[in-house]
Amino acid sequence: MTLKVLGYAAQSATDALAPYRFERREPRADDVVIEILYCGVCHSDLHNARNDWNNTLYPVVPGHEIVGRVLSVGPQVTRFQAGDHVAVGCMVDSCQHCAACERGQEQYCVEFPTVTYNALDRHDQRPTYGGYSEQIVVTEQFVLKVPAGLDLPASAPLLCAGITTWSPLRHWKVGKGSKVAVVGLGGLGHMALKLAKALGADVTLFTRSPGKEQDARRLGADRIVLSTDAQQMAAVGGQFDLIVDTVPYVHDVNPYVPTLAVGGTLVLVGYLGELEPALDTSPLVLQRKSVAGSLIGGIAETQELLDFCGAHGITSDVEVIRIQDINAAFERMLNSDVKYRFVIDMASLQA
Amino acid sequence: MTLKVLGYAAQSATDALAPYRFERREPRADDVVIEILYCGVCHSDLHNARNDWNNTLYPVVPGHEIVGRVLSVGPQVTRFQAGDHVAVGCMVDSCQHCAACERGQEQYCVEFPTVTYNALDRHDQRPTYGGYSEQIVVTEQFVLKVPAGLDLPASAPLLCAGITTWSPLRHWKVGKGSKVAVVGLGGLGHMALKLAKALGADVTLFTRSPGKEQDARRLGADRIVLSTDAQQMAAVGGQFDLIVDTVPYVHDVNPYVPTLAVGGTLVLVGYLGELEPALDTSPLVLQRKSVAGSLIGGIAETQELLDFCGAHGITSDVEVIRIQDINAAFERMLNSDVKYRFVIDMASLQA
Repeated sequence: MTLKVLGYAAQSATDALAPYRFERREPRADDVVIEILYCGVCHSDLHNARNDWNNTLYPVVPGHEIVGRVLSVGPQVTRFQAGDHVAVGCMVDSCQHCAACERGQEQYCVEFPTVTYNALDRHDQRPTYGGYSEQIVVTEQFVLKVPAGLDLPASAPLLCAGITTWSPLRHWKVGKGSKVAVVGLGGLGHMALKLAKALGADVTLFTRSPGKEQDARRLGADRIVLSTDAQQMAAVGGQFDLIVDTVPYVHDVNPYVPTLAVGGTLVLVGYLGELEPALDTSPLVLQRKSVAGSLIGGIAETQELLDFCGAHGITSDVEVIRIQDINAAFERMLNSDVKYRFVIDMASLQA
Repeated sequence: MTLKVLGYAAQSATDALAPYRFERREPRADDVVIEILYCGVCHSDLHNARNDWNNTLYPVVPGHEIVGRVLSVGPQVTRFQAGDHVAVGCMVDSCQHCAACERGQEQYCVEFPTVTYNALDRHDQRPTYGGYSEQIVVTEQFVLKVPAGLDLPASAPLLCAGITTWSPLRHWKVGKGSKVAVVGLGGLGHMALKLAKALGADVTLFTRSPGKEQDARRLGADRIVLSTDAQQMAAVGGQFDLIVDTVPYVHDVNPYVPTLAVGGTLVLVGYLGELEPALDTSPLVLQRKSVAGSLIGGIAETQELLDFCGAHGITSDVEVIRIQDINAAFERMLNSDVKYRFVIDMASLQA
């Protein structure tokens, strides 16, 4: 029997999000039924709601930073039971047999993972709907444990903003002695600062906006460099092993490349599109530098992040909102007017 | 006492190379004086002769793929003696104390290495002059041993074309089980095929020109993919751990990125400049791919390459010319009319 669920959906690219009743699939033997307590608000929620990527299936229920409580489990589920605090991120399934899946990199699944909303379930072809809703049904393998002691609403953004910055920090082996820079101080950037610092790195924030000094230091930055100040940029030439570039729109990456050390990597985690102005390959060739990209993280890696955050007491800085305020929150997010992530208290859905 | 040397120089961007008499420095205690037997002809020789990079100091004596015989050594020289077959590549000195130099990556010296020609010696500020000449004076640390048994003229291109492709193959850990592709079949490309194959990789050549099949297979390619054929390109989607892109002029790298495996790297070794058309970051982000650059290699790494070539009997495919034919050779090189490297027999200088 399918589950009747209340959520918030956009019915078209120009409609605001509004209450929407829909059905979740009848739970399968390996499914976990989750009561959603909190859901973070990601830039991509807005992009999908407005069809900015020309691939939205309407109605769309956004949300992929989900924290909740297990309501029930199917007979094959072994790792969860009713009452557990759990989380769901950007993916709810993948092919489970390609080389990437076998390496635990489900985000790079050769068939592309089934994303948490705006996709079709790979077994029954029903649309997936995200976390702006009461409940969600997810196969056990894509459900994560929330460590005891972590603040639940502030943990929600770990599922996307957190893992998106954690994965490159781990892949490029950031630790004690590493020099890391972060471009942009938003949902992703503030997590990158916290995580890089907790991993033992020396951390620099690049920003175009003066006045972020105090906040950035509190979040973990050892120094702040105004990227519009040529002198400050020159002073950090050849420094960084890794630059995590969280900027979600087209921007010039060329000024950052000279601040990489020999062999360093600038990894884009926020911007998908054409690099303009054109990327100059000269500093790449002359100092064996790389420009790379990275996408969220695998399921095991996401659990590793949650456990790391549990051990270090790391969560996001969040502003908790009611679901009724989601459209206003989208507008504020567009203006970078949030420190640093909105999280919806899903109890408001019953108001 | 300075050494009087005959060579070939360009006197300006529009002059052909012509005989030129100049002085080499008086040998220092750590110097090796080398009689040049052969010198390879690199694209950058032509670029420098014609001031294509707007930094040529005239007169310029090109040449940085040098093979010769030791004439004499200074009193502090311990590793060489008169009569040894030796080689000199693209660098003749570096700061010797920065982090890169200490790692044996003199090519990434923070002060920039002293290049073999078109530079100023870092001790006496005299111009450096390259291998299109009778003799050269080089500090012992930048002189390489040529393994016994290697054909001397065919070894000369190992010093630039060889090491430029060897260094990324080693840095990205190519070996048995690796899948490597090479873009472009010229001086660098043909060495990349030979070296990747000898390292045990499965090797693919990307080319825009049909008819290279037989030659490419002989050089080590397991398959040839016409990069202008969308179907052939699609058939190798998601395949390669490393693509060595040897193309020396602006070109579209976007079609190659989808042929990288998850986590793969496209490394540019031939083109310094702006990437146009613009690089699309989407496949980088969606599959954690990288676009990188790489510059020649360090001195120890170059010796490693020469020893590997000695052990595997690898040299370049060369066409030996007389120095008097260098200007015609430049024109033919511009038209890719050489298989695959010109090497000057320096005995012709006495004709």
